[in-house]
Amino acid sequence: MPHIPTAGDRTPWRASVLTLFPEMFPGPLRFSLVGQALEAGLWSLALHQIRDCGIGRHRAVDDTPTGGGAGMVMRADVLAAAIDQARSVVPDLPLIYMSPRGAPFTQARARALSEGPGVMLLAGRFEGIDERVIEGRGIEEISIGDYVLSGGELAAMTLLDACVRLIPGVLGAADSLTHESFEGGLLEYPQYTKPREWEGRATPEVLLSGDHARIAAWRRAEAERITRERRPDLLARKTKT
Amino acid sequence: MPHIPTAGDRTPWRASVLTLFPEMFPGPLRFSLVGQALEAGLWSLALHQIRDCGIGRHRAVDDTPTGGGAGMVMRADVLAAAIDQARSVVPDLPLIYMSPRGAPFTQARARALSEGPGVMLLAGRFEGIDERVIEGRGIEEISIGDYVLSGGELAAMTLLDACVRLIPGVLGAADSLTHESFEGGLLEYPQYTKPREWEGRATPEVLLSGDHARIAAWRRAEAERITRERRPDLLARKTKT
Repeated sequence: MPHIPTAGDRTPWRASVLTLFPEMFPGPLRFSLVGQALEAGLWSLALHQIRDCGIGRHRAVDDTPTGGGAGMVMRADVLAAAIDQARSVVPDLPLIYMSPRGAPFTQARARALSEGPGVMLLAGRFEGIDERVIEGRGIEEISIGDYVLSGGELAAMTLLDACVRLIPGVLGAADSLTHESFEGGLLEYPQYTKPREWEGRATPEVLLSGDHARIAAWRRAEAERITRERRPDLLARKTKT
Repeated sequence: MPHIPTAGDRTPWRASVLTLFPEMFPGPLRFSLVGQALEAGLWSLALHQIRDCGIGRHRAVDDTPTGGGAGMVMRADVLAAAIDQARSVVPDLPLIYMSPRGAPFTQARARALSEGPGVMLLAGRFEGIDERVIEGRGIEEISIGDYVLSGGELAAMTLLDACVRLIPGVLGAADSLTHESFEGGLLEYPQYTKPREWEGRATPEVLLSGDHARIAAWRRAEAERITRERRPDLLARKTKT
């Protein structure tokens, strides 16, 4: 078992999620290091059922799109009420709407968020939310990738997982953050472990040399080669900054 | 309740996941339309515990990185055995390793996969897997975004959700796929619903005009404006194809 320190006097990193499916949570976040960190109080998770702020006897949260079109749109008044209620519990968290129209989520953003007090995430339905609540409540839109999901919940979990694992104490000392993909703007170099030969495939000789400088140089060159081959856009971005 | 047709004579779309945490599944995929489609037999989900192919009394699945470094690397022999076993149950599925080093997952890829027989997904641990199994078993690497997760499971769920909702019959007739983000290479236009005015914010006049041609033109222009402002890279990519 990896060593997980308890939160002690430290304020936990706070996650607050507004959703129509609170029962999906913590779900996958209950497991492994992220789940152990939740139990240890290194981060906390508050869930807000948007439907509690719904309208009328049926607690309606959506209505048809003005101007026509298929699907339903979540109402600005309902979402604003849910947001205001959640903020009355935990104020001062950045408020993010998980949306394919948002800014692409990156490792740098995960790191920045993990160093803050936490996040409040709005998980909508894929047909979208009334644009006015985005303006009226100063909501930032973030996208986890260029594809459409059936709801924002998996996107919220993905963002939380990426952030929580960067909170100090969540990963054991045995786990490294410094050589992984995107740290330094590169994809990670290839990894090998035992056995030395497998199905006629050998481990690169340099890795068995014991020459730490040569190994470091080889890994750097491989990380650059792989990034150049697969994601030249990452190198272009790096050059610009 | 939306109408979900049963699978009938049709072969379900098959998802097969290799993981150290099979108990995470179906998890969030149990809910809403994607979960109803699973129950209705429109898609199936098979789980394979990689540890069952582990080595020795402790069923070891990983070992230290050859050449040194922090973390553990999943063994090629163990993973190959797990893959071969899973393939003996369901052959002929594209085999994908969820990895930040992979090709970025896109809506076009989700659509292509949803039109095929299904997918076999390998969810690794973030320290990585032995490179030789990637070559030896012809594994494709796919990334859901430029960030690092504590494991591949959430990435696998995200990919599955994006694919499953595109399987014919999963979304009700009321839900539209044609106007959402990335269809046509653009982000979606802003949505509005009732009430007509909220906190002093009006619904754009054109949407209340009843003039369908004007509404369509406005939405198209808004989708283009938002894409140009937020994601000029999407427009550049579109121009190239």
